[in-house]
Amino acid sequence: MKWIRASLADPDAKPLAAPAEVFYARLDDERVLPVRGTPFDGFEQTGERLRLDDIRFEVPVIPPTFYCVGLNYTRHIATEGLRIPDKPDVGYRANNALIAHGQDVVMPPDATSVHYEGELVVVIGKRARNLSAAEARSCIFGYTIGNDVSERNWQKSDRTFWRAKNSDTFKPMGPWIETDADVEQMETVVSLNGRESTRFHTNDMLFGIDTFISTMSRYLTLYPGDILWMGTDGHSPDLADGDVVEVALTGLGVLRNRFTGPGGARRLGG
Amino acid sequence: MKWIRASLADPDAKPLAAPAEVFYARLDDERVLPVRGTPFDGFEQTGERLRLDDIRFEVPVIPPTFYCVGLNYTRHIATEGLRIPDKPDVGYRANNALIAHGQDVVMPPDATSVHYEGELVVVIGKRARNLSAAEARSCIFGYTIGNDVSERNWQKSDRTFWRAKNSDTFKPMGPWIETDADVEQMETVVSLNGRESTRFHTNDMLFGIDTFISTMSRYLTLYPGDILWMGTDGHSPDLADGDVVEVALTGLGVLRNRFTGPGGARRLGG
Repeated sequence: MKWIRASLADPDAKPLAAPAEVFYARLDDERVLPVRGTPFDGFEQTGERLRLDDIRFEVPVIPPTFYCVGLNYTRHIATEGLRIPDKPDVGYRANNALIAHGQDVVMPPDATSVHYEGELVVVIGKRARNLSAAEARSCIFGYTIGNDVSERNWQKSDRTFWRAKNSDTFKPMGPWIETDADVEQMETVVSLNGRESTRFHTNDMLFGIDTFISTMSRYLTLYPGDILWMGTDGHSPDLADGDVVEVALTGLGVLRNRFTGPGGARRLGG
Repeated sequence: MKWIRASLADPDAKPLAAPAEVFYARLDDERVLPVRGTPFDGFEQTGERLRLDDIRFEVPVIPPTFYCVGLNYTRHIATEGLRIPDKPDVGYRANNALIAHGQDVVMPPDATSVHYEGELVVVIGKRARNLSAAEARSCIFGYTIGNDVSERNWQKSDRTFWRAKNSDTFKPMGPWIETDADVEQMETVVSLNGRESTRFHTNDMLFGIDTFISTMSRYLTLYPGDILWMGTDGHSPDLADGDVVEVALTGLGVLRNRFTGPGGARRLGG
């Protein structure tokens, strides 16, 4: 099942069709079925039906806590010149940086080496503590796609990732949450301006979803709506004003975002 | 003005007195004046009055993003053997770890070197972007107190601060938000089991509030309810089961929390 969070493309067009300014809806083929409430706290159907053209995608969930795995694929760790971690230490990203499918990544004026990182996103559905690896998936609501946009110079020069990875618009996520994905059979394919640029088996992780959830839940409580970004493989070129990045994960759809200036790479002849 | 977030101590006692299970209230001397809504999104008085004995303190705000300055006082940096930062790179903490004034810090079984860190907390009240240092305080709603509880062995062994600083219950905050504090005249005094243990001038920071807010807001939007913990000075002993830590900041009250096992330091004769 696909869950979207949406607003009306034209707020004046069908004011009665949406239960709130920003609302959850089930996506059934091309039909958008708005609900009152949320899939995390309980919901009821409104009986309304909208078309995809009627709505604007919103970030599919605003997490209470935004977890992100930093280094979880060997090729990416090697190309970035980093050390392979010996245990699953999770990190954090910040809600200010979240944008939805279709919204623009804005590269600040002094951002010169901005990279994409296509990632699987795990969405927590149930409060969980002290789960074994075998029990770990019982707390998962579904999956979506993230682009962990990163400015490599700031990543090296700063003591934390605050602007390298958490500048406004640096965390595209969506387009929707899929509850029935098969992570074992999944591929991540990133395309730049319509041409394939990075491809990897999504589950070729150093530490898998079960290991992370079970390790984390020994020390902390996971809450409904928490998200866990699983890291990326491969290497991105420096992105420039006007570049369009699409991150496709098998069964999860395509997350598409345009990268815009004032910053970004200088292109030859540009 | 003091703002508390509270629930009823006895939920059955006065069900009509509280506008919701967890509610905001103004604190006027010992009188608790519940409101509908929040001081961030708008509120109205309910006309009810409660006594402090009627309520239980809740975490004064659940932030959209939880910012925390890591190293901001020279003595603390020296005693912990760390390097003095050359610019204000902000970090993050996690909402799962927040607890209120009066709640217990629970030290996990393998936590052996748990320290307190008494901190000033800045609470953002207005959406802000691109503020100059001179404008920075215009977005501040008020101030409260934080205890950035830290397990020093995990802080050294892990790649991130996920369990060292964000294990459940490791982030006491409160008791209330004070809108009229004078940061320049403020002292931070930490007491352990009733005896003063650490004292410093709160504003003796490497990088001050204005510098942090103006630097951050060049790259990110601050939102109402965001919090910024300003770092700590001094050094804590290893805490043990039963220890009570009080963090007092001039004009902001006292944040008191008991530290409990199963983990913690082994005391001689204990």
